[in-house]
Amino acid sequence: FMGWMKALAGASPARAALLIFAFAIAFFTSLLMMPWATASGRPASLPDALFVATSAVSVTGLTPVNTAEHWSLAGEITIIVAIQLGGLGILTVASVLAASVSRSLGVRTKQLAQEGWKTDQLGEVASLIRIVIIISLAIEAALAAVLVPRLIAIEGDVVTGFWHGIFYAISAFNNAGFVIHADGLEAVGHDPIVLWAIMIGVVLGSLGFPVLYVLWRFRWHYRSWNIHAKLTVEVTTLLMVVGAAIYAFLEWNNNATIGEMPMWEKLQSSLFASVNMRSGGFSVVESNHENSTTMLISDALMFAGGGSVSTAGGIKVTTIAVIWLAFLAEARGDKESVAHQRTIPASAVRVAVSVVAMGATLVLISTLALMHITGLDMERPLYESISAFATVGLTSGLTEELPPSGLYVLAALMFAGRVGIITFAAALAVRQRTTRYRYPEGRPILG
Amino acid sequence: FMGWMKALAGASPARAALLIFAFAIAFFTSLLMMPWATASGRPASLPDALFVATSAVSVTGLTPVNTAEHWSLAGEITIIVAIQLGGLGILTVASVLAASVSRSLGVRTKQLAQEGWKTDQLGEVASLIRIVIIISLAIEAALAAVLVPRLIAIEGDVVTGFWHGIFYAISAFNNAGFVIHADGLEAVGHDPIVLWAIMIGVVLGSLGFPVLYVLWRFRWHYRSWNIHAKLTVEVTTLLMVVGAAIYAFLEWNNNATIGEMPMWEKLQSSLFASVNMRSGGFSVVESNHENSTTMLISDALMFAGGGSVSTAGGIKVTTIAVIWLAFLAEARGDKESVAHQRTIPASAVRVAVSVVAMGATLVLISTLALMHITGLDMERPLYESISAFATVGLTSGLTEELPPSGLYVLAALMFAGRVGIITFAAALAVRQRTTRYRYPEGRPILG
Ligand SMILES: [K+]
Ligand SMILES: [K+]
Repeated sequence: FMGWMKALAGASPARAALLIFAFAIAFFTSLLMMPWATASGRPASLPDALFVATSAVSVTGLTPVNTAEHWSLAGEITIIVAIQLGGLGILTVASVLAASVSRSLGVRTKQLAQEGWKTDQLGEVASLIRIVIIISLAIEAALAAVLVPRLIAIEGDVVTGFWHGIFYAISAFNNAGFVIHADGLEAVGHDPIVLWAIMIGVVLGSLGFPVLYVLWRFRWHYRSWNIHAKLTVEVTTLLMVVGAAIYAFLEWNNNATIGEMPMWEKLQSSLFASVNMRSGGFSVVESNHENSTTMLISDALMFAGGGSVSTAGGIKVTTIAVIWLAFLAEARGDKESVAHQRTIPASAVRVAVSVVAMGATLVLISTLALMHITGLDMERPLYESISAFATVGLTSGLTEELPPSGLYVLAALMFAGRVGIITFAAALAVRQRTTRYRYPEGRPILG
Repeated sequence: FMGWMKALAGASPARAALLIFAFAIAFFTSLLMMPWATASGRPASLPDALFVATSAVSVTGLTPVNTAEHWSLAGEITIIVAIQLGGLGILTVASVLAASVSRSLGVRTKQLAQEGWKTDQLGEVASLIRIVIIISLAIEAALAAVLVPRLIAIEGDVVTGFWHGIFYAISAFNNAGFVIHADGLEAVGHDPIVLWAIMIGVVLGSLGFPVLYVLWRFRWHYRSWNIHAKLTVEVTTLLMVVGAAIYAFLEWNNNATIGEMPMWEKLQSSLFASVNMRSGGFSVVESNHENSTTMLISDALMFAGGGSVSTAGGIKVTTIAVIWLAFLAEARGDKESVAHQRTIPASAVRVAVSVVAMGATLVLISTLALMHITGLDMERPLYESISAFATVGLTSGLTEELPPSGLYVLAALMFAGRVGIITFAAALAVRQRTTRYRYPEGRPILG
């Protein structure tokens, strides 16, 4: 079997990744359909189990059923294991793909050697995976060390506090957005330490393994960072601050969300919302009480997403950076995009635009399908589609109301958004083309 | 004055184009504020006059007032002159810019020489402008020759039929979408000849001058066409057919739109709607009676727009072609995009992505502003914003309801969408940069 997997991965690593994730989802679906997995003892329906398994493995956090009420403790443990394995699987598969897919995508070979991922340092795939696991577990342990004592104090029970602390530590670092309280985070959301621990976990997870690795190796010696780490941290910080400012501006006087909070809590909640819109998926206020304008801003931030090779989804912050740099160069009349004394190759722009085009197309098709299924106008189907595509997990409340057909649409979108649209495109490529000769240039007029 | 204009254009042709259009809008605004321009004899308000002048010069067709009822005959003549001058101005300025802006954008010099725009054949700017005018007037005259007799028969009055025929011929070829009937095209919309004449005028106008020039020179010798003409005609045909099919599918049983028509008229109306969504802006059924799904499809088609250097707006069909080809090449593992035995240079992708990013940003900001002003949810503000940005002129009925602040937002968007977002970006460029040395490549991880 391992030999077969190896042969498959050698032939098409992207297709192997698709199969691995499909297999994991099928496995956890069958577990969640066991009678012992639900609180009621009646087996969960196929659409519910498949949706939750997909949501957990893809670390999205959307769910048609209330996690705390619908599942037994065994079911909840199944879910957190699926999240942990899903998160680790995403990081390791994405790391390995970034190296091996390069053959078919033709864009990623050199970056590993040039850009801080010293393949000679990391050595073989096995040691790469080991480092991923060490970094993940170390951060999760640190989060749990903060959350467990705090939740024991809040819940007044050692076992419950311990279990909830572990659950939120894993859910936060993996950007999974699953909550174990029936009323969401509201039960513990007034404790700043819990909120900040979750927020820091989400941000660290969303930066991505290549950035965490650079941080681990070079700490705050900013100059030693590679261009990927610099761009990721810069765009993440920018989106986080601007998102929080806009959220605070739009919701300041909305009494259904943050309107009645004291000033410091308004600011804290705005930052929490901004951080989680880009992939975490945790919320202290319900999204469907937000203004329509806030939901639209949220659509944009969700679509943007987090860092590459991370548990965050979306089109990724470096994609946005590359597009912005291309635009800047164009406006200035420069021939090439430059950032941090590095020339961004033109082919990177092509990858970026492919990712955005594919993402926008998937979201458009899903939105149309959900509008057709529900008869609703655009707002909530669009929000839910982007949340699924970018594996964010924030909800306008629509997921709970969807019939099975709608759940399958969103599950397919979570899968496509997670396994990675570029990976997806590479898997679709039937053959490798080698250019035998080059045609003369022909340039259509644009704009 | 001409010397000053020349110096200005030499220094920054993009900025000169901005000034020329701003000047034209100011001129027609002042004309429309004259007492003789309105039917009532009371001068139009500044927001209304400014909006209609901008809409006419940018050949959009959005209007807060009913063209037939609000303006006098003199006002209507002012509008059609603004449309004609606006359309010709767009074609000539865009043609000249395509050559001269190339210095600052660094992307357009060679295309003119290589791609059928034989600059030695066209000679000086003067003869370029002459050809633009000849082609425009020839097509408008042909349209009028069909429309005038037909409208004389329908209206039962020679003078009215003559005037309306001329008006619709100009409005159609310039993709202006202004109608002279108080109830829109419904009064004449059951006549297939009128509809088809308008449809053909809109399509010809939306192909753009470079394509019309190629058609004029090479007729249907497809192999002699340059890559710009091939891509434009292909994507236009594809969007037209697919748009009509989707429209028919979604609206087939909607009795508020085409549901009660006989089959052939359903198909004809679907094609008419599809053609006009991409820029024409004429409609036989009101957009706000369409399904929400149809409005979303319409959003996408409006944003796509027509051909480059045409009276159509949007991001342009060649931009879509370049992005699609980049995606295809990426999925196949090819190093370069190829179409029709031509290599699409990587810098074309950068221009394409800049156009899309700028357009999406403008539409997002305008949508948020209109949502904030009106308190509505996303659907209608988004539709109206895309219609203005892409100078389409289809309306969800929102323009009529907007306060002056909302009208100014849409007018700014029509202006930005028309003068061309790449032109706009070039104008913003304060200085020309010459690269003294090249930094080593640095490639962030994407997707
Ligand atoms: K998530
Ligand atoms: K128009």
